[in-house]
Amino acid sequence: MTLAVRYTAARTLDTAPARTPAPGPGEVELAPAYVGICGTDLHIFHGDMDARVSTPAVLGHEMSGRVVRVGAGVEGWAPGDAVTVMPLRWDDNCPACLAGHQHICQHLDFIGIDSPGAMQQRWTVPAATLVRLPDSLPLDRAALVEPTAVAVHDVGRAGVRDGERVVVVGGGPVGILIALVAQAAGAEVRVAELSAHRRALAAGLGLTAWDPAAEDVPALVREWTGDAGADVAFEVSGAAGGVETAVEVLGVRGRLCLVAIHPRPREVNLHRFFWRELTLVGARLYDRSDFERAVALVAGGTIPAERLISKVVPLTEAPAAFEALEAGGDVMKILVDCTDEAEGAAV
Amino acid sequence: MTLAVRYTAARTLDTAPARTPAPGPGEVELAPAYVGICGTDLHIFHGDMDARVSTPAVLGHEMSGRVVRVGAGVEGWAPGDAVTVMPLRWDDNCPACLAGHQHICQHLDFIGIDSPGAMQQRWTVPAATLVRLPDSLPLDRAALVEPTAVAVHDVGRAGVRDGERVVVVGGGPVGILIALVAQAAGAEVRVAELSAHRRALAAGLGLTAWDPAAEDVPALVREWTGDAGADVAFEVSGAAGGVETAVEVLGVRGRLCLVAIHPRPREVNLHRFFWRELTLVGARLYDRSDFERAVALVAGGTIPAERLISKVVPLTEAPAAFEALEAGGDVMKILVDCTDEAEGAAV
Repeated sequence: MTLAVRYTAARTLDTAPARTPAPGPGEVELAPAYVGICGTDLHIFHGDMDARVSTPAVLGHEMSGRVVRVGAGVEGWAPGDAVTVMPLRWDDNCPACLAGHQHICQHLDFIGIDSPGAMQQRWTVPAATLVRLPDSLPLDRAALVEPTAVAVHDVGRAGVRDGERVVVVGGGPVGILIALVAQAAGAEVRVAELSAHRRALAAGLGLTAWDPAAEDVPALVREWTGDAGADVAFEVSGAAGGVETAVEVLGVRGRLCLVAIHPRPREVNLHRFFWRELTLVGARLYDRSDFERAVALVAGGTIPAERLISKVVPLTEAPAAFEALEAGGDVMKILVDCTDEAEGAAV
Repeated sequence: MTLAVRYTAARTLDTAPARTPAPGPGEVELAPAYVGICGTDLHIFHGDMDARVSTPAVLGHEMSGRVVRVGAGVEGWAPGDAVTVMPLRWDDNCPACLAGHQHICQHLDFIGIDSPGAMQQRWTVPAATLVRLPDSLPLDRAALVEPTAVAVHDVGRAGVRDGERVVVVGGGPVGILIALVAQAAGAEVRVAELSAHRRALAAGLGLTAWDPAAEDVPALVREWTGDAGADVAFEVSGAAGGVETAVEVLGVRGRLCLVAIHPRPREVNLHRFFWRELTLVGARLYDRSDFERAVALVAGGTIPAERLISKVVPLTEAPAAFEALEAGGDVMKILVDCTDEAEGAAV
């Protein structure tokens, strides 16, 4: 028996023994090493996604680990291979898939939300979801590949080009990753973030970060851009004020890439969209090319993943880590260590 | 002395003698023939744009007419030439102009709002604003070129392609023109419009028009598209419900082109933008290529402009026509006849 972190009800997690099914044809059994706690995991923890999640649910989809054994018909993978998982299963049959957008399949199975996730000591997934990691990449850093793939997808959806001026509204893990990926694409970047801790972390990475509570961000952008406004804004805050700022900072024909989840409708200044011929682009998840680019960025050091990891906790302490994140505070990314050693140490 | 229609205060128009300045260097004096009453003119009439409009203001920017005389240095134009006007003056110096988007110049002078418009018997404008009309095109139909240029621009901003399925929310003059231009681009089109009169007119033009008050438009779109959703929606209604419908009908990666003016922020289902990776594109005005395409569409009969003209009133009756439009009723486009003959007849 191995252990799993399970969501059982709103604001309730436990760790409990789990029986992992043996890998069937086309499947692979993994030993997860590190699993990041994501904003979506927190939404589930809040109980906001109870309509979608069947309990008990094993959370986790930002992971790194190694292949333990492979099912029938699986080729190209062997025990010990270092991997991450692109946690999507699509039906290849709906209008979205037929149009080539499998990652937004109308019947998407997001592994870690709609089916069991990675926060456990053994995890069986389709071999088709595996993404190879270079041996040189430490597995703790590799747990940042999935959110980096999100950032790569977002920057691609916004079409960020060399020399453009970009404002990232919200400097949490995904916001910082977007800023770094946009910078790698040649953009000049500014980050707006309320948390002093996160602004300091951004500054340590060479990013300019503004405090929207103390500074007039649209005015700073006008000054920065000679009254032109920004070319691109990313809304990563999830807040009403974030949407407002992201619209206001954009120049003529500016593009707003919507990354954050806004569960309820938001008031949007549509007149500004008309007046400046702005574009709003929704961005969700990633495809395989985004993942492969993310592996290269993290392995090559363009994304200094180690700087974004605030803390690593053993699996048995994951419930407490969720509660700490829920309470806010000075954190960026928390990883759950699912290795047998960590569990042994903690139990 | 010639006559002009003047906006003097909220809900107040008069007709009064006007002294038209002689055309200066680079300018042309026109004799407007027909001038359409536009939604923006009604906004001004309501008093909604008093912060921008200095009174007394001569309204009108959807026009056709003939050259009367030309100022110094004007080449290529002669008295009697049939023309319409692209009513924009830009500064060629702001970030928008420098980026090549003169039509959304940050200091745009929209002639007919920010400076005197066409609803008068003589009108002096920069020669650079003139667009030539073919002699074969009757001048009443030619007054529809300007709103057709809006529609051409909107369809271009949305990137409508052959075979795509398009929903136009709002079947007033611009909505119907968008529907016809999109159809000419090879799209299948549906129109959602509350007014039975306008739906009947759309049907007479071969368009399928739905009543959003009586029918479940998103359900009809799902049925029409085999659950895929529409490729493109145009929000031309200006209503909160129109925004909601336009978002809801779109399929994965669908594009919403925002045409209507929404003076106040609107609640928008941003979650849907994220979930389906939708795009919202603001569209404003037009450029010269849109105008030239519009002339060709109206002159060639692809746009049956005569079918959209509900009524032609002499200049002296323009104030009453505004009041009738304000009261609603069964109208599409009303033209003001500014020719000397009409004025003579009416006085």
